Amino acid sequence: MKYQNDIILRAARGEQVERVPIWLMRQAGRVLPEYKATRSRAKNFVEFVKNPDLAAEVTIQPVDILGVDAAIIFSDILVIPEAMGLPYQMIEAKGPWFENTLTSKSDIDALRIADGNDLSYVIKAIELSKKGLNNRVPLIGFAGAPWTIFAYMVEGSGSKTFSQAKKFLYQQPQLAHEALEKITQSTINYLKAQVAAGADMIQIFDSWAGVLGQEQYKTFSLHYISKICNELSPIVPVTVFAKDAHFALADMAVLSCNTIGIDWTINPQDARIIVGHQKTLQGNADPCLLYAEECVIEQEARKMIQAFGKQRYIANLGHGLYPDTEKHKVKFFIDCIKSL
Amino acid sequence: MKYQNDIILRAARGEQVERVPIWLMRQAGRVLPEYKATRSRAKNFVEFVKNPDLAAEVTIQPVDILGVDAAIIFSDILVIPEAMGLPYQMIEAKGPWFENTLTSKSDIDALRIADGNDLSYVIKAIELSKKGLNNRVPLIGFAGAPWTIFAYMVEGSGSKTFSQAKKFLYQQPQLAHEALEKITQSTINYLKAQVAAGADMIQIFDSWAGVLGQEQYKTFSLHYISKICNELSPIVPVTVFAKDAHFALADMAVLSCNTIGIDWTINPQDARIIVGHQKTLQGNADPCLLYAEECVIEQEARKMIQAFGKQRYIANLGHGLYPDTEKHKVKFFIDCIKSL
Repeated sequence: MKYQNDIILRAARGEQVERVPIWLMRQAGRVLPEYKATRSRAKNFVEFVKNPDLAAEVTIQPVDILGVDAAIIFSDILVIPEAMGLPYQMIEAKGPWFENTLTSKSDIDALRIADGNDLSYVIKAIELSKKGLNNRVPLIGFAGAPWTIFAYMVEGSGSKTFSQAKKFLYQQPQLAHEALEKITQSTINYLKAQVAAGADMIQIFDSWAGVLGQEQYKTFSLHYISKICNELSPIVPVTVFAKDAHFALADMAVLSCNTIGIDWTINPQDARIIVGHQKTLQGNADPCLLYAEECVIEQEARKMIQAFGKQRYIANLGHGLYPDTEKHKVKFFIDCIKSL
Repeated sequence: MKYQNDIILRAARGEQVERVPIWLMRQAGRVLPEYKATRSRAKNFVEFVKNPDLAAEVTIQPVDILGVDAAIIFSDILVIPEAMGLPYQMIEAKGPWFENTLTSKSDIDALRIADGNDLSYVIKAIELSKKGLNNRVPLIGFAGAPWTIFAYMVEGSGSKTFSQAKKFLYQQPQLAHEALEKITQSTINYLKAQVAAGADMIQIFDSWAGVLGQEQYKTFSLHYISKICNELSPIVPVTVFAKDAHFALADMAVLSCNTIGIDWTINPQDARIIVGHQKTLQGNADPCLLYAEECVIEQEARKMIQAFGKQRYIANLGHGLYPDTEKHKVKFFIDCIKSL
């Protein structure tokens, strides 16, 4: 066995496991004081992401401190727009902000197709993380889904509705497809470089899936996620997590991926019926559960495992950890899952 | 017949209709230049809402200008917290903001149970609107669902996650129920006063349903919506619209209400199967559809009516109109539905 602990890889591949594996979205960052200490050594968020030593340090922290079954490379989904020619800033308490956005054909023509060389700082961070992990647990690589990346590139910031990005789909669908195709090619290049550098699994995050209806989601998002899955899944296990995409589960069931992540608004038993038994499910605790008392956390963790079952399942939250979650509650939740 | 056009009331009650009735959430306000002219006569949004003459004026505008089959009283769901003792401001381009929020038992003990007298400006606006409408079309009254009102009263502003409001549910569930009960009683009083003043139908808006999981939604939201339905539906048709509550449709099917509103992420045929044939469905065009060219709007309007069918159906959007929608596109969509 290559890893001291490879339970998450076995769960993703549908092999028998002796207990439920667990990792948490946003485990690297946000809730650990150790993260904040490392973070303070960089000038700003974007510089932090671009510093491979610091990124590797916070990637490994949750393995040491929280005891999760996988590390996930510390980075941001918006490194892809930057590599394609649209740089961003991360504004404190506000989120990402792009000075330039996609509005016209010339904006899209000007986008470059990125590859691993454009994102060498992430590749370097993966190599350093692998060294630091020293085969204790696998390392997860990741990228945003093309639709989510496109949504930020058009909208220029976060949004409750992403109405400007959706306006683009309704008014200039062909141009949207051109942009999405370029983002998809860049993402495939980027993820292959992550795997070459040592990433053992890949997760695709479609954070803004839920603003689209079923038909637009198929056309403008799943079509491109599917291309990524087809390229990556022959080489590593792939997880697709589309937040709030309850309407797309049946379509996701036929993706060439190993694992489907679901959020806490989706009933695990319903998801299993729709997705079938050929895929692993991942999720789906409400991040706010970790505000509760320990007895409530334990009770809900137990219910979650009963609902998903112990095989073909990776425990996680249904979204990233919230910044004001207490570290000891996070640790308690992880220990609960591992002991149940 | 009391009204020149009562097609929406007939559709809500499940009576035969000759065409599909339509109104649009946020039809009063946002997209009409006429609205903006009236709005400019008030000092700020809250003063505008509190001015019965101005509120009645913008309530009637969409009937004259857009030709919708119902008016909805122009107001805000946050008048209830204000009447209970938590005033709010509406900050331009940011949304609502509360100086004081609910954090402790004493905050909740201090809340008053409001009644129609506390909201006499809305009641007066309803009376003026009825006079101005002069029986052309029915008037819809409304209130926020108790969970959504509670969420604002704890969070103090809009939020993507409403994590502070949800933290309250996880940490102080009993206290949350005390607050929700007071909000529910206030809402029942308020809606009964709206009906006494002339509201012909009532819609309950649960704007933040989608941040809760299925079980919490039943306990902390549907339980209270059900109480409101039980009190109101014997006197007028009641519509419940819970945004993003795909997981709650089966539970909503047993509410004592006439109509269930759905958003564009829910497939109309699936909704019909889950809800059954004893209720009217309302919705569910994506507000961003109105950014598209007219041929696309027409094609999607046609598909929507085919999916819902013409009986037991009220056409609407799946959320409120977005502010940058062009008036002529809104009018075109309404005309399409009426002519199909």
